[in-house]
Amino acid sequence: MCELLGMSANVPTDIVFSFTGLMQRGGGTGPHRDGWGIGFYEGRGLRLFQDPQASVDSEVAQLVQRYPIKSTAVIGHIRQANVGAVSLANTHPFVRELWGRNWCFAHNGQLAGFAPEPGFYRPVGDTDSEAAFCDLLNRLRSTFADAPEPDAMLPVLVAACEEYRGKGVFNCLLSNGDWLFSYCSTKLARITRRAPFGPATLKDADLTVDFHAETTPNDVVSVIATEPLTDNENWHIYQPGEWVLWRNGEVLAQGGL
Amino acid sequence: MCELLGMSANVPTDIVFSFTGLMQRGGGTGPHRDGWGIGFYEGRGLRLFQDPQASVDSEVAQLVQRYPIKSTAVIGHIRQANVGAVSLANTHPFVRELWGRNWCFAHNGQLAGFAPEPGFYRPVGDTDSEAAFCDLLNRLRSTFADAPEPDAMLPVLVAACEEYRGKGVFNCLLSNGDWLFSYCSTKLARITRRAPFGPATLKDADLTVDFHAETTPNDVVSVIATEPLTDNENWHIYQPGEWVLWRNGEVLAQGGL
Repeated sequence: MCELLGMSANVPTDIVFSFTGLMQRGGGTGPHRDGWGIGFYEGRGLRLFQDPQASVDSEVAQLVQRYPIKSTAVIGHIRQANVGAVSLANTHPFVRELWGRNWCFAHNGQLAGFAPEPGFYRPVGDTDSEAAFCDLLNRLRSTFADAPEPDAMLPVLVAACEEYRGKGVFNCLLSNGDWLFSYCSTKLARITRRAPFGPATLKDADLTVDFHAETTPNDVVSVIATEPLTDNENWHIYQPGEWVLWRNGEVLAQGGL
Repeated sequence: MCELLGMSANVPTDIVFSFTGLMQRGGGTGPHRDGWGIGFYEGRGLRLFQDPQASVDSEVAQLVQRYPIKSTAVIGHIRQANVGAVSLANTHPFVRELWGRNWCFAHNGQLAGFAPEPGFYRPVGDTDSEAAFCDLLNRLRSTFADAPEPDAMLPVLVAACEEYRGKGVFNCLLSNGDWLFSYCSTKLARITRRAPFGPATLKDADLTVDFHAETTPNDVVSVIATEPLTDNENWHIYQPGEWVLWRNGEVLAQGGL
């Protein structure tokens, strides 16, 4: 299994605090030693850092923790391999361009005997996760000639996730930089932080941040993770089948309850 | 104008030496302050570092110089913007998946009034360079249903480059991780290093490397750059229209002379 980390915010926000907690699980407090990756949107650009090494040992991960990259949409992942060797090509998140935007995807779970119809997008590595991402984009592409509104796209997206969930475990995060979609098959949690901000204490590292000192009163920052990352805040636990589409830190649409 | 850096090698080789020279031109000895990027293939995976900041000031560039990533195919670029704002989405190299491989592209030059036919691949940013890359991939895709042998692909590739060259300046590097294609419209140089290796001295930084101590007798490493990076070796200067397809550090095919 793997762990997911997502962020949606209404102002460019750094995710160093949450990332620091997640990275400890990559071979430190957790067993996810088989690589990690994180993608930060900067406008329409996507800054992607990945390493097939354990995150606790990764020099690139140390750079990301030291270097506060600000973004309104982030997707991160740490990996404990089940399908596919430990290699860069098998490291999440995966990226493809669709309709002139970078789409970024990470998956937690596994799909048994997953062999989707070949389509335009093809996996580069050999994970079930990247195969599912390509299949998802192929479905969207064959349904819409041009970028649809999120409302129109959601039924196709949710139906695909439901189908994948029937083949195993499919918790995922997907973003095109404008919105961030989260789907829970078995395990996912979320929190929305807004004024009045308080302190937060990481479960996995000896670190407390006073968000009040780091933010302005209008900031809205939502974090989505496989398990709660802090132990002094109230995280909402997703139900199986529950999904949320986020934009600017707020819930744009949700369902599956 | 911008500067290009490419490498093709028969064993995974670090490019720290050449990259250190190139980075000095990003706001140090050269005027290319508008971002930089470098992509390293690791197997079928591609490790991409980019920054819209000047490379001499970039913490990510310092990491890349400190951290010897070994690769058999590398494409790097430093940018002096002419078309498109300074932003991550406009920073080379550009990447797309085609036929289950990561294709990576960087361009030096500009194309006047370039408005290619819309196709499957669409630019995310607003540079002429990314538009040309998408057009190139759209042409390949519409010509071949599946990945062709390099021999079959080259006429399509070279014809497209000739056409772009007719619209302005089009020096480029393109790779799918297996081979690396280099095309000269106005300015490109190359060197192949093999045994007996000697010392090399960077033009742009006070640095000499004794490749003899760093390599084995069977290593073949070719470096392609806008201008020679060392001042004590014999670089070959490409002629306008000249192209070379590299694999494992060797010339696989060449033409346009």
